[in-house]
Amino acid sequence: MKAIFDARQWHHDPKHFMANGKAQPNPEQPKRIEVLQNGALAAGCTFSEPQDAGLGPIAAVHTAEYLTFLKNIYRRWQYIKDAGEEVIPNIHPANRSDSYPKSATGQSGYHQADTACPIAEGTWEASYWSAQSAISGADYLREGGQSAYVLARPPGHHAFADMAGGFCFLNNSGIAAQRLAAAGLRPAIVDVDVHHGNGTQGIFYNRDDVLTVSLHADPERFYPFFWGHAQERGEGAGLGYNLNLPLARGTDDAGFLKSLDVALERVTLFGADVVVVALGLDASIDDPFQGLAVTKEGFSRIGAAFANLGLPVLFVQEGGYLSDSLGENLTRCLTGYQTAT
Amino acid sequence: MKAIFDARQWHHDPKHFMANGKAQPNPEQPKRIEVLQNGALAAGCTFSEPQDAGLGPIAAVHTAEYLTFLKNIYRRWQYIKDAGEEVIPNIHPANRSDSYPKSATGQSGYHQADTACPIAEGTWEASYWSAQSAISGADYLREGGQSAYVLARPPGHHAFADMAGGFCFLNNSGIAAQRLAAAGLRPAIVDVDVHHGNGTQGIFYNRDDVLTVSLHADPERFYPFFWGHAQERGEGAGLGYNLNLPLARGTDDAGFLKSLDVALERVTLFGADVVVVALGLDASIDDPFQGLAVTKEGFSRIGAAFANLGLPVLFVQEGGYLSDSLGENLTRCLTGYQTAT
Repeated sequence: MKAIFDARQWHHDPKHFMANGKAQPNPEQPKRIEVLQNGALAAGCTFSEPQDAGLGPIAAVHTAEYLTFLKNIYRRWQYIKDAGEEVIPNIHPANRSDSYPKSATGQSGYHQADTACPIAEGTWEASYWSAQSAISGADYLREGGQSAYVLARPPGHHAFADMAGGFCFLNNSGIAAQRLAAAGLRPAIVDVDVHHGNGTQGIFYNRDDVLTVSLHADPERFYPFFWGHAQERGEGAGLGYNLNLPLARGTDDAGFLKSLDVALERVTLFGADVVVVALGLDASIDDPFQGLAVTKEGFSRIGAAFANLGLPVLFVQEGGYLSDSLGENLTRCLTGYQTAT
Repeated sequence: MKAIFDARQWHHDPKHFMANGKAQPNPEQPKRIEVLQNGALAAGCTFSEPQDAGLGPIAAVHTAEYLTFLKNIYRRWQYIKDAGEEVIPNIHPANRSDSYPKSATGQSGYHQADTACPIAEGTWEASYWSAQSAISGADYLREGGQSAYVLARPPGHHAFADMAGGFCFLNNSGIAAQRLAAAGLRPAIVDVDVHHGNGTQGIFYNRDDVLTVSLHADPERFYPFFWGHAQERGEGAGLGYNLNLPLARGTDDAGFLKSLDVALERVTLFGADVVVVALGLDASIDDPFQGLAVTKEGFSRIGAAFANLGLPVLFVQEGGYLSDSLGENLTRCLTGYQTAT
């Protein structure tokens, strides 16, 4: 299988994030790249670098206001007296329509949904190339490729049109889906990350040309808390084009795969002609976030289930954190897909 | 002048707050109480304790959902593995209507507008008695008193109906104004704190029975960033009943007093029969926040300006942080008022 990655994606190296009232080590470490590369290689992937498609396909999803913030905020942050080394927000509007401040601190609160998306020196560059990897993956499918794996890191599915969040800055899966939709295709995004794909949902919430489906640990007591409930079905033209399948904490292979069947039937009845899999691996029973309990064998079956759709599939990496099984979970998923194709 | 304070207000003792990407010492320290007490005593105040009017007048301003959170969250926080010692939020909804989580972490994000309102063991108790002090002050005026000073600490004007924020938990000024309105009076709140009174504005934004006016450093580059602009004039029935007077950073006595004249004319033309002064002292040229440049003499003139209204006045303490002039600024303001009465 074709795999896509750019070495500049290493340059995002966050040291902190704040959770539960104190600074903690950031689990979205560059080291994940090496583990995921090895996992993809073990599944027979051949890596190539993305082309540079420029800002157009990124700005088709994210606001220019947000991209201006994201590209420049780290430099601006250095002018704040006695600031921390990374950009972390400390105040949030009650509603994003509550005006737009000029200061770095104010804009940080506006464009960062939480304290888990610290922006450091290399964040823009790494995010840009992570998105370009996803765009090149979408282009490969547009040109007739049947499947590809995008080692998108930093991940993307918590990034909204105008907000970073949860280790995510640019919504790689959403950018890829938009690239496919702009080419006249009818993409469905299926998000199997343990966390709800709130940014992706937000980007397409009012649209009927891209289906968004997410399986995840119930947000009542799990990040991102405010989004991911079954009753969130889309709005306006998008009503009925968003499907959330929250799962009880600790759901195992059988429960996960049963919900995945529901997801994939929705994809079929949407008439999708291409699928973007937002491939978080943190539903693993071994993942430090401990939300769900999918085994290695479960990841094989998830891969096979996507193959059974009979559609071109773009796997875009989302979460999945360091554990003994992270690399093998990726290998299993991609191998399960290829074996069943 | 009558002054009101309860010793249980000492029990809120926050150690941290997060600003500009790192944990910093919290300037809203209990030590402020002692300085403000001495400042009030020097102005001839006589302190008494508040009565306990119960939760009714507090719940007339704050939602029961929020009060349930505020009363219980510190205890609930202790069950989070490896949590920080104080409740500080790490994720915020894009809009407060984005569902309501069950978990402590999720609710913290929902009910805390920023990382500058850490909740510790004594926060509920101190906030409750700070609000009771304000209620007793309002009751004193209802019963014919002409003026009183409420040593409200923790302060209140950044607290919305359902959100803490900026060192504030219960909106003491708003609770006092509501208490007066419920008694058939027509109160105006004039907020002279260096920070916009965003919580107070939010509470009364759709109402025409309580006028809200705030003078403050321009929020474009100053906390609270998202609120406090001149174009925020109220909504619905409240349109035209909110007046914001943002001031350029470093505005001096002359500029401040000129805007205060505009504020007080609005109070007169609202037909107010009682005034609640949200008395921040951090517009001081000596305040560590360095937003405006009001001198000690300026505070004398601010006090005198309120006296010239010829209405009963309740001074409710808001911000103002430790500096060499904090206590004297209070003395000057209250003395200026009494001299001009």
